[in-house]
Amino acid sequence: MRPGFVTPDNMAMLTDLYELTMAASYREHLPRERATFDLFVRKVPPGRSYMVFAGLEQAILNLRRFSFGPDAIRYLRSTRLFPSSFLRFLETLRFRGDVDAMLEGTVFFPHEPVMRVTANIIEAQLVETTLLNTINLQSLIATKASRVVEAAQGRPVVEFGLRRAHGTDAGLHGARAAYLAGCAGTSNVLAGQHYGLPIFGTMAHAFVQAFPSEKDAFRAFVHTFPKGTTLLLDTYETMQGARHAVEIASELARRGYHLGGVRLDSGDLVTLSRQVRQILDAKKLHTVKIFASGNLNEDRIAELLRLEAPIDAFGVGTELSVSSDAPSLDVVYKMSEVTRHGRRFPTQKLSTKKQTFPGRKQVSRLSRHGRYVGDILALEGEAVPGRPLLVQVMRRGQLVRPLPSLASIRQHMERERARLPSRLRRLGDVRPYPVHVSAGLRKAVQELQRKLKEKG
Amino acid sequence: MRPGFVTPDNMAMLTDLYELTMAASYREHLPRERATFDLFVRKVPPGRSYMVFAGLEQAILNLRRFSFGPDAIRYLRSTRLFPSSFLRFLETLRFRGDVDAMLEGTVFFPHEPVMRVTANIIEAQLVETTLLNTINLQSLIATKASRVVEAAQGRPVVEFGLRRAHGTDAGLHGARAAYLAGCAGTSNVLAGQHYGLPIFGTMAHAFVQAFPSEKDAFRAFVHTFPKGTTLLLDTYETMQGARHAVEIASELARRGYHLGGVRLDSGDLVTLSRQVRQILDAKKLHTVKIFASGNLNEDRIAELLRLEAPIDAFGVGTELSVSSDAPSLDVVYKMSEVTRHGRRFPTQKLSTKKQTFPGRKQVSRLSRHGRYVGDILALEGEAVPGRPLLVQVMRRGQLVRPLPSLASIRQHMERERARLPSRLRRLGDVRPYPVHVSAGLRKAVQELQRKLKEKG
Repeated sequence: MRPGFVTPDNMAMLTDLYELTMAASYREHLPRERATFDLFVRKVPPGRSYMVFAGLEQAILNLRRFSFGPDAIRYLRSTRLFPSSFLRFLETLRFRGDVDAMLEGTVFFPHEPVMRVTANIIEAQLVETTLLNTINLQSLIATKASRVVEAAQGRPVVEFGLRRAHGTDAGLHGARAAYLAGCAGTSNVLAGQHYGLPIFGTMAHAFVQAFPSEKDAFRAFVHTFPKGTTLLLDTYETMQGARHAVEIASELARRGYHLGGVRLDSGDLVTLSRQVRQILDAKKLHTVKIFASGNLNEDRIAELLRLEAPIDAFGVGTELSVSSDAPSLDVVYKMSEVTRHGRRFPTQKLSTKKQTFPGRKQVSRLSRHGRYVGDILALEGEAVPGRPLLVQVMRRGQLVRPLPSLASIRQHMERERARLPSRLRRLGDVRPYPVHVSAGLRKAVQELQRKLKEKG
Repeated sequence: MRPGFVTPDNMAMLTDLYELTMAASYREHLPRERATFDLFVRKVPPGRSYMVFAGLEQAILNLRRFSFGPDAIRYLRSTRLFPSSFLRFLETLRFRGDVDAMLEGTVFFPHEPVMRVTANIIEAQLVETTLLNTINLQSLIATKASRVVEAAQGRPVVEFGLRRAHGTDAGLHGARAAYLAGCAGTSNVLAGQHYGLPIFGTMAHAFVQAFPSEKDAFRAFVHTFPKGTTLLLDTYETMQGARHAVEIASELARRGYHLGGVRLDSGDLVTLSRQVRQILDAKKLHTVKIFASGNLNEDRIAELLRLEAPIDAFGVGTELSVSSDAPSLDVVYKMSEVTRHGRRFPTQKLSTKKQTFPGRKQVSRLSRHGRYVGDILALEGEAVPGRPLLVQVMRRGQLVRPLPSLASIRQHMERERARLPSRLRRLGDVRPYPVHVSAGLRKAVQELQRKLKEKG
């Protein structure tokens, strides 16, 4: 056991205790029944008009290697909560269910299942927490990143929030989700290694401080990295930093290299970027890019561009990596169908403000002139217009087909954004998107509520 | 390589690229110099009056096993960014520096170093991102959890936000941080296994839905878990759920068991808890506890208790696990000293609103009548009153003494909270705590600013 790390070997244990207690009781009372669960988000977070589905690849990988190892069983035994027969059952348990899901990178709306799990009820229940944890993180960050990318109007956005992301996994998979939603890359080296993301980064203030003077620091850095380097200007005083950068650029030019860019990380970025641009242009350094960072988010980027700040690229850290204005999705995993003695019954939760839709469902998307105009939440198999969004990805615990590459997910997401109604893409403006409930589903809701009330 | 997981083997790669580019340039220009970095938070997050230091144990573990394996070197070579000599150097690099830190569970305030790293400049720089990532997460959650625990006025608070925590590591270490700050335990099974935390959990709505009726579900569950079980009441209608629970309790009583509690997870918790208490008390079920959950945070708990809702324990999920009103700390890692040809020089960053304090520092805490009255940020070795908070934990890469147990950290945190001025413990009220800058440190700042300006 490696304390303090979550690995494929102990992933199944990263779960809420009640999943295991429920599983133990299902094992006793309903061992052969099957259930369907929908993974969906109850509402769009404040300030957003749409969400982006991400994390499916990791969710599926976790299902494929779902198992309880000897350490896990030993610990569970030590809690004295579970019958031994249940622990022996867990030893060989694998996930062998069916999963339908939207394509990663698909835009989605409240109450639409983004994943649908149908499996033996024990298996379907036990994977709840890991699925929620995985999909919440990546969909949250992809949703935020899509807004930041939109604000930058085609200028590259680099994600560099690893230090403020919530732990190691958030750092690694936040970078993946941000890239998938259109970021140009990340500062995160491990994300570069694992997911092939473009990685970016040159120097921090400490580097400048380490040398007797700013100019010494710049000179040392371009000696090590002469090609297309970016220099950080604001360790002491930005304008002076810009003048030093210009000197370094001319020294580089004599050696046959050119300076790639300069970075501003504090102060009034509108004024500073204009002044720095002037200093650069006065020396014919038109190709040297201005890179801005420092507490940026989609609103600040939009404001900088509205004021025509001559900024060529943005680095966005904390606000992107924790989605700080809306740091969680109201993502849930709810049972919509269960078998009783093998017969399928729709199920529904009626809790105040937390009602769910019963039955196996499909989401159908309607388009007009290449733009999305509305979705229909319907029963599976119901005849409704539009394109169905849920497709089978796992069957009996096996992948139906290889998962798409990250590059193709990123392309899909870009097309999705282009197909959204323009009112939904506008920042600072929350617009509803019509999600209709089909006639069949409405009828199913009414029937089930009547039955549940009758039963009392 | 295991894609998609951060393990001890690849932890060093979970870093920002610029740490590696700076390291490569230090290696070329300043290979034998040493540097001191302070890890501190620039400001208290909105709504808070103090912060709680947490995550030191994991930070130190990461320093002890800091290394670049063959996969890492292979990937770094493939980027063509680095000289081969630097990559060979990385192959054998370990962290061999000194670390001073506050005790985990200590309350702290802006600009106070919670950790101070002194090492070869390359090592000190390379560990920046992992230290920030680790300390930010756990200190953030411990700070939030301390408020939630305070609001509950001695009633147990169980953390169960794993599903909405930002990924696996946030789930595991958020649970640790919440426990350290006074939570009674967690729903997170892996956190129970790794850190010995008490784990809690019984059933979700899905369990109730899986059976033909609520009563069938309750009966099945207590058959599997007869001892002290908690039943969830609001799947369909809470009062009816309460009546069903009462029936189950009397069935249990006939078998010699008693019902442990009931859980309310939606609706008006004040009214519902009173009505449920009445139903229970009418059947002499005075020992059956009422457990409340559902979008709780410190403010809602305080309000429930102000209105005298008869709730015995709270389950807090999302808002605790993502610290949703303030989802990041403004935690930074700044160079405060560097050697040049072996001689120590204080360093300082002057960026707008991001100035730092130069030199190796110590934090001294003043008490009166058992309560903290103020801190002094001073130079190391300066004669100031009070108790020094930074103590050496690592020397030349080795632990100076074993790290404290989680139980003792939790006790320390409880004492810390008791010693805070009561105005700082009040929720909904932000109060400043005096952090004085010593005469010696003020003088050092003035001298350094003069020198930096002269140099131009």
